[in-house]
Amino acid sequence: MKLHFTKMHGIGNDYIYFNCFETEIENPEELAIRLSDRHFSVGGDGIVLILPPDEPEKADAKMRMFNADGSEGNMCGNAIRCVGKFLFDHGLVSKTTILVETKSGTKRLTLSVENGEVAAVRVNMGKAELAPEKIPVTLTGDKIVGFETTVGGEVHKITCVSMGNPHNVIFTDDPYGLDLEKIGPGFENDPLFPERVNTEFVRLTGKNELTMRVWERGSGETWACGTGACAAAVAACENGLCEKGADILVKLRGGDLTICYTDDAVYMTGPAAYAFCGEVEV
Amino acid sequence: MKLHFTKMHGIGNDYIYFNCFETEIENPEELAIRLSDRHFSVGGDGIVLILPPDEPEKADAKMRMFNADGSEGNMCGNAIRCVGKFLFDHGLVSKTTILVETKSGTKRLTLSVENGEVAAVRVNMGKAELAPEKIPVTLTGDKIVGFETTVGGEVHKITCVSMGNPHNVIFTDDPYGLDLEKIGPGFENDPLFPERVNTEFVRLTGKNELTMRVWERGSGETWACGTGACAAAVAACENGLCEKGADILVKLRGGDLTICYTDDAVYMTGPAAYAFCGEVEV
Repeated sequence: MKLHFTKMHGIGNDYIYFNCFETEIENPEELAIRLSDRHFSVGGDGIVLILPPDEPEKADAKMRMFNADGSEGNMCGNAIRCVGKFLFDHGLVSKTTILVETKSGTKRLTLSVENGEVAAVRVNMGKAELAPEKIPVTLTGDKIVGFETTVGGEVHKITCVSMGNPHNVIFTDDPYGLDLEKIGPGFENDPLFPERVNTEFVRLTGKNELTMRVWERGSGETWACGTGACAAAVAACENGLCEKGADILVKLRGGDLTICYTDDAVYMTGPAAYAFCGEVEV
Repeated sequence: MKLHFTKMHGIGNDYIYFNCFETEIENPEELAIRLSDRHFSVGGDGIVLILPPDEPEKADAKMRMFNADGSEGNMCGNAIRCVGKFLFDHGLVSKTTILVETKSGTKRLTLSVENGEVAAVRVNMGKAELAPEKIPVTLTGDKIVGFETTVGGEVHKITCVSMGNPHNVIFTDDPYGLDLEKIGPGFENDPLFPERVNTEFVRLTGKNELTMRVWERGSGETWACGTGACAAAVAACENGLCEKGADILVKLRGGDLTICYTDDAVYMTGPAAYAFCGEVEV
């Protein structure tokens, strides 16, 4: 059977997208493992299913995402921007403010349209959760901000944020000097984080400007992670390095995102782009 | 403009193939750089153009290949197997013994057909050249076999083979223990090799069986390199580790090839496979 797909990326965070308004995908876990291989198959950080909403009166569409290891992701900020672009460009929605159901709840997207196509998307990423049990992280207190502990076999000051998925933010002088392939798994699988964790290695590089790399659970280093950029900005504000309510420029390996952290919600603005479309035998 | 392509691989050595019997490709160098990016575009070790032959009375087709850095390759054993499969499966040839022009001369392919499609291809890779000026390597003598010298900043015993492109073979106890990203560029750009060089890191793992990794000039580490597997088998015979005229199993990162080294020619047999097909805006 041939499956039609669209390869899209948000600043290099690349997934294989399936239009499930038209096609049903069976075994998405197995498909994600198989198709994500960059040498033998399509290649990507995983697959994303763009589906009709469960509650059509409350949302316009639904997304489900599966990492390269087959595990289902709660939510991905770069992927949901691509979902917004796909829905509008393919005529599945005609509005520029839309609601998309995810495993982390329904998200509101604001689409910036240029020449009839979506160029950038602003996403209400929901409220940042700081309570340890919400991350989850096996520490006590109201929030874990700049807390010195052993993680990944070394002592670090960690800041823990949930953006619907668990993040652990480390501020460091030289993110690009780190060997993430070597140290990433130690953070991901540290017993502090019972559901594993995404780790951001972040440096303050200007006023309200951060430079970061990210190690994602289930995927390894990715060029960009939308929820990771949000977590980095939230952590920077909580540690007094950036301003709450301001636009914070977050420079990731694959490109830039703009994050705004408020008490009510975290807003992320960034591009979404097509790489190519194709057909694969499954 | 939309370009149609087919992504194929020979044991994981993956290129983007264009049917230039139908479409003309302008600026293949630039296209190779752009499309080879695995996060922002199609992704691959480079692109391959499948063209009508320059001399139709002497050959069935022509291939040109461009590495991920835009440089034109002379020849690639894994790519030419895929070219053979593409030509037969798409009805561009109907014979099972065909001739394909390459920058390293015209190559003879023998196609193994199963259920109407090519499953494996045997390639006459031409004669192995051992004379230093044919590699080229800036050393004197009839051939460079197990010659101790400084290369990539350290002392190694090197064996130099040209399979139409330059190879430098190093026998080592633990190819998978090496950090190729770190040491590869030092070999590739060593002044011993005025046209740069592909380097194979090889271990004898059984009777007429080799296990290897390869660092390709212009591409970095690849999962497999057909001419590299030939060079490794030739070097193993020249160093008395394997038998000339026998089938030598060469295990690469992406899969297995069978190589036979004779005075007249080196023969390589291995699989060729489709990954997917698609369209990309250029």
